[in-house]
Amino acid sequence: LYFIIVLNWHPLKCQLPQVKGANLSAVNLQDLVLDRTSSISLSQQLTLQLSQWMVSGRLAPGTRLPASRVLAQDLKLSRNTISTAIEQLRAQGYLTSQAGNGVFVSMDLPQKDKPLLHTAIQGLKKYPPLSNYGEQLQKNNFKERSGQLPFTPGVPDLNAFPYKIWQTLLRRHSDRAVLGGYQSNQGYQPLRENLAQYLNSSRGLRCTPEQIIITQGAQQGLALCTQLLLNPGDQVLHEEPGYMGARKAFTAIGANINPLIMSPNGLDVSQLPSETTAKLLYTTPTHQYPMGGILPASDRLQLLNWADKHRLWIIEDDYDSEFHFYTNPIAAMQGMSEQSPVIYLGSFSKTLQPGLRLGYLVVPKPLVSAFVQAKSFICGESPSLSQAVVSDFIEEGHFIRHLRRMRLNYQKKWEHMQSLCEQYLHNTMTPIAQSAGMHLVLESNDSKLDDVQLHQRFSQAGFGSSPLSYYYQGEVKRRGLVLGFSNTNEQERKKGIQALATLL
Amino acid sequence: LYFIIVLNWHPLKCQLPQVKGANLSAVNLQDLVLDRTSSISLSQQLTLQLSQWMVSGRLAPGTRLPASRVLAQDLKLSRNTISTAIEQLRAQGYLTSQAGNGVFVSMDLPQKDKPLLHTAIQGLKKYPPLSNYGEQLQKNNFKERSGQLPFTPGVPDLNAFPYKIWQTLLRRHSDRAVLGGYQSNQGYQPLRENLAQYLNSSRGLRCTPEQIIITQGAQQGLALCTQLLLNPGDQVLHEEPGYMGARKAFTAIGANINPLIMSPNGLDVSQLPSETTAKLLYTTPTHQYPMGGILPASDRLQLLNWADKHRLWIIEDDYDSEFHFYTNPIAAMQGMSEQSPVIYLGSFSKTLQPGLRLGYLVVPKPLVSAFVQAKSFICGESPSLSQAVVSDFIEEGHFIRHLRRMRLNYQKKWEHMQSLCEQYLHNTMTPIAQSAGMHLVLESNDSKLDDVQLHQRFSQAGFGSSPLSYYYQGEVKRRGLVLGFSNTNEQERKKGIQALATLL
Repeated sequence: LYFIIVLNWHPLKCQLPQVKGANLSAVNLQDLVLDRTSSISLSQQLTLQLSQWMVSGRLAPGTRLPASRVLAQDLKLSRNTISTAIEQLRAQGYLTSQAGNGVFVSMDLPQKDKPLLHTAIQGLKKYPPLSNYGEQLQKNNFKERSGQLPFTPGVPDLNAFPYKIWQTLLRRHSDRAVLGGYQSNQGYQPLRENLAQYLNSSRGLRCTPEQIIITQGAQQGLALCTQLLLNPGDQVLHEEPGYMGARKAFTAIGANINPLIMSPNGLDVSQLPSETTAKLLYTTPTHQYPMGGILPASDRLQLLNWADKHRLWIIEDDYDSEFHFYTNPIAAMQGMSEQSPVIYLGSFSKTLQPGLRLGYLVVPKPLVSAFVQAKSFICGESPSLSQAVVSDFIEEGHFIRHLRRMRLNYQKKWEHMQSLCEQYLHNTMTPIAQSAGMHLVLESNDSKLDDVQLHQRFSQAGFGSSPLSYYYQGEVKRRGLVLGFSNTNEQERKKGIQALATLL
Repeated sequence: LYFIIVLNWHPLKCQLPQVKGANLSAVNLQDLVLDRTSSISLSQQLTLQLSQWMVSGRLAPGTRLPASRVLAQDLKLSRNTISTAIEQLRAQGYLTSQAGNGVFVSMDLPQKDKPLLHTAIQGLKKYPPLSNYGEQLQKNNFKERSGQLPFTPGVPDLNAFPYKIWQTLLRRHSDRAVLGGYQSNQGYQPLRENLAQYLNSSRGLRCTPEQIIITQGAQQGLALCTQLLLNPGDQVLHEEPGYMGARKAFTAIGANINPLIMSPNGLDVSQLPSETTAKLLYTTPTHQYPMGGILPASDRLQLLNWADKHRLWIIEDDYDSEFHFYTNPIAAMQGMSEQSPVIYLGSFSKTLQPGLRLGYLVVPKPLVSAFVQAKSFICGESPSLSQAVVSDFIEEGHFIRHLRRMRLNYQKKWEHMQSLCEQYLHNTMTPIAQSAGMHLVLESNDSKLDDVQLHQRFSQAGFGSSPLSYYYQGEVKRRGLVLGFSNTNEQERKKGIQALATLL
């Protein structure tokens, strides 16, 4: 039996002790790194490393390999391991045999002086060009936001989530073989049925399960709408201040955004343009994002009539209408007419968890097939297990109960926020009461406040926020901070508002 | 206490018994449907239905509502329920009050003769136009494939999945509040670390976790590549026969597909065009889909050099290279050079489950930011829980063990398939041995066989398949059926091949 050297897996640091032997002069194997603890077999490790050496020119084409007996001895590996690796490399074309002469590195491999593999050109220039869209993104200095600070908008109370029930439902479905296969691009049928019932009874929609398309969060819903409804260069009407995620999806396809004039209730229907070439209007009528206005029913009808007359689509984003503290949820626009040009957009990110990544579209029946096709091209199905769990969660009444509990939970937090604002911010910032649901808009009394800088300093103090000016594309008319309070505890809220008062 | 009428929820069938009363003559409430068993409150049900009646004109603008006391009596609802609903409808703008005169349906609501809400125009004509892409999809007669039959290609052995281990890992992570929030558009960091280690050691890649982007299956990876690398009208080189999912993603953005000339090893590098304006080449070098060839190392290097010279991107789709029965997995092209123009595409659909919807891209470092941005626009993050579970599954060695077990499992099934083909199909169809991994290509000895019809008849007999001609975009050169055998049991295989023999 051979003794096999065991090394930790530090590819760049650990080396085999130099192996000496007559036949090894041509091939220096001292840098071979083999990890006996790995689940990858030694022969496979050997194969991969030798192939990389041959590709990089470290083992030059035409080099003769030592006999496998010698290799085995010098590398302290079994003869079988060596033979397997050599056989494998021969099958892959790295090595060739000459009868009676031994095994050689193939001459078909690149010569050392060929440019591709040895030049170290920096950055992107080395690579082929990107698409116009790719080039455009390449110019942005994009960085992922890291970590979640208290008050970062958009996160529900994750500590109040009913994990026990969730785990029971997960256990119920997580060993169902059928869910592991392919189900439906459109979405898991029972979920679509339960969701249709919820939307019709609780949100006033008029839809059947056949009109529902399950998506990877609302963002994928927006991307699908963008692809199917907009050509590059098309005009889109968008609330201002308004939701950045939608704006990003529209501009990604090369659409141009025109801001809508707003009233305290949301978009100002009396100011809708009398002529327009826009193809789409994006709105959050039931809880304007981020300001919180509610568009009255008569305005909704006027908007529907206007859209119908000018032949444009409305995306009705109903992102968190479940959380209102002044009135009950108001019925969705989608349900106001049988054939309205409305695409209804929803998400479980606020009502359940963002980490689930489940959202939904309700589209007019004649469009379903195109939407499902487009979804099959851009991502295929949504994960079945989480769809099955959410489906039961709705069907068994947990969803409605959870929403009711969260409504009370957030209302208490909002009342606490309100008293904190009165106590600490009464001279500097005004809480926009109707915005309160999961977040609160604090508008600066000083209209020249640099809210981006405030946001940064608040972040250094350990608290999340969004500057109100981020929600504008054109001229910034109101400044302040948007604070997500739903995922905060009492102490965080108090310390946060105190810290904000200090910064002001 | 009032007695509340309980009805089952059959909106179109059940009606309240006609309610009589002096004040109700103006408003016929006999069709109101209230469901006491619903988790939706009665006042909210009343609100929604009355608002729909007002919108549809069933309750005309200006109609005076009976006093709430009368309504409560006649509808057998509590006075409180009625008042809440009326208050709600007033807040939403449906009702207006005139001091001392009562409550009226608002005159701002549409008149009955306005067109929007009462015309029943069929189909899409009623709706605003779609994008060019949307119009194109609209023309296809797309239907979702329904149900999974034995032999449907692309499904791993779902009954051999290690559900116990999976459930343990799910339980470990499913109550972690932090996973419910937002994590990272690029993907869960520990998963990217474990995946980088697996890909480097097992698949011969050269990548860091920073180069990995987690996607919703390989299809989303393809969609991202398409967006970032291709402009409409660009040329793409594609294997023929080749993977339909990739072709669909490319054509979706308006790219034109040019077929590559193939050899038994995969694409024929000696036939690569000496001049090309193509921007991208899609290939499955380690297990050509569906024919199963393996591109030798020297051909890979030639391809890399050629791509570098002509400045085009290569998408290396490594969809199921883990399952080979003739040689060990061959190292990926991506790892052959430090700066190759290769985007590596992978998926857990074959190695774990399609229902998970997790895939990954490995992209050159300078492109990471653009890819992550694009992902944030089209869908945002991937679900955190399943990423955490897969991460541990890899880290604890379950993944490598599962792959090893499945390789043996599928090899046994393939040997069974082979003997069945010899026994029942030796005169009619030839199994393409090197295609075998999770599927088997049965090529017809009759080159004029209508394989689409055969596929349909086989489907009627209860078995799935894909006609080989589906994998061609241009002239169909080989015909037959692609059978996925990995998710079949012994009896299904035997009955299936016998049924096929009967059909032939």
